[in-house]
Amino acid sequence: VSAQTIYWVDGIRAEALPLPDRALEFGDGLFETYLYAENRFFYLEQHLRRLSKGLKRLEFPDCLERVQRQVAQIQQELTDANIQQAAVRLTVSRGSGPRGYAPPETACPRIVINATVGDSDWRKRLPPARLGLAQIRCASQPALAGIKHLNRLEQVLAAQERLDAGCDEMLMADFNDEVVSVISGNLFAVIKGSLVTPALGSSGVEGTRRQLLLEQWAPALGIEANTGELTLDSIRQADELFFTNALVGLRSVASFESLHWEKHPVCDALYKLYAGDNS
Amino acid sequence: VSAQTIYWVDGIRAEALPLPDRALEFGDGLFETYLYAENRFFYLEQHLRRLSKGLKRLEFPDCLERVQRQVAQIQQELTDANIQQAAVRLTVSRGSGPRGYAPPETACPRIVINATVGDSDWRKRLPPARLGLAQIRCASQPALAGIKHLNRLEQVLAAQERLDAGCDEMLMADFNDEVVSVISGNLFAVIKGSLVTPALGSSGVEGTRRQLLLEQWAPALGIEANTGELTLDSIRQADELFFTNALVGLRSVASFESLHWEKHPVCDALYKLYAGDNS
Repeated sequence: VSAQTIYWVDGIRAEALPLPDRALEFGDGLFETYLYAENRFFYLEQHLRRLSKGLKRLEFPDCLERVQRQVAQIQQELTDANIQQAAVRLTVSRGSGPRGYAPPETACPRIVINATVGDSDWRKRLPPARLGLAQIRCASQPALAGIKHLNRLEQVLAAQERLDAGCDEMLMADFNDEVVSVISGNLFAVIKGSLVTPALGSSGVEGTRRQLLLEQWAPALGIEANTGELTLDSIRQADELFFTNALVGLRSVASFESLHWEKHPVCDALYKLYAGDNS
Repeated sequence: VSAQTIYWVDGIRAEALPLPDRALEFGDGLFETYLYAENRFFYLEQHLRRLSKGLKRLEFPDCLERVQRQVAQIQQELTDANIQQAAVRLTVSRGSGPRGYAPPETACPRIVINATVGDSDWRKRLPPARLGLAQIRCASQPALAGIKHLNRLEQVLAAQERLDAGCDEMLMADFNDEVVSVISGNLFAVIKGSLVTPALGSSGVEGTRRQLLLEQWAPALGIEANTGELTLDSIRQADELFFTNALVGLRSVASFESLHWEKHPVCDALYKLYAGDNS
């Protein structure tokens, strides 16, 4: 059951990446994961905003117009090919350069896009997840926090732990026992009727759906939602847990370690809003 | 004056990397930088030992024999082509895999080698370096410390700072003001006649020349050399500073911030040993 994946390098169908490339050499780049369905990419604006922040943080030349042009082209190609749904990854590498860590004086970012075609329906909600606790911790690095850069070995090692543990997702904490996120998404806790998600000042990725939830979805339902500190202890005492990402939208947590949550009324309400009113 | 670079993917001359590749996607891999001169790669054993440690840490399948075979093949190709000297980079990626962070059940690591041909003489010592202090700090992550993995954005950002500052190298410290290394090498301080280099338990790369210095070169000259803590303050009061890496061997530090060192007797003696007796 291998899903079909199509690749583009700088807008042209390709099977290989030209060498040298600084994303391969140093993880010198950024990425976005888009949900494509119903003939369009979801939430382009939110993805572009995060990418823009990352490009500035890594001091890349501005290439947002090229990104927008290529995303529009590929949206058209997927639509023309009658593809129902796809997980689309956009990778922006700093491109080629001479030997060594120093970025070239005039970098020309390389844009790699791949579309993994699937036939599921994005509206179909996934069952509540069994959540484990990753042994690997997230390092504190404010200079790289929030953006979706390519240095993802912590997530890779946590995903290996997830496979070994047989969980659906893993909670990732920092070295101070503060919750950061799950491997592929942002965690929200319901505490006394309000939503709290980690502030991500020192590590983690500011997810597009996290932003939407904080800025639009929770306010639309009159639910208070804030960023703040979430300790492992506060997670264990939460009334409800769920996480967000671009592909699943929102997913409730059924269990964490030996704790179980039977009902997920806040996530239920938010999911209804998410699946009913998507733009 | 662009140096010529030759690329091999899994032992075959290539100009591109097959997609997908997890090194591109997540920095999921390791690398080594070899000095090639006089018809051979220097210190193969030390490089192999570090690579082996990294492969185990990232839970890669053992591919050391393939690495050794390809390195031997490329050594022969460079020799046949009459190349005097080259900086050779070996990258081991976890290879291809399905979408997402989780490593494939049976990964097949991909080996990418590139040789950047130069005509300098490795024995020729570089002048003492002007050292700056990188604003970016090294995050603490014991799970990734010591190994030469591909998540190198901290070094990339420090190298950008180096260009902006007009320095030859930058000192990198952690968030506790403990010295970690320079961008492309390991730092040694001479304090009361003994050598000290950071222990690298939480960040940094255990350099091959650092190991050689600790285990062979310093003992051969009767100089005490230890790993330990080096604060920024202790660096400023050192009698002498130098750093090591695979391409320059050892390089003295002429200045750090407003401090200057005119003489470098310990590095002079070590360099003589290094350049005279190389295997």
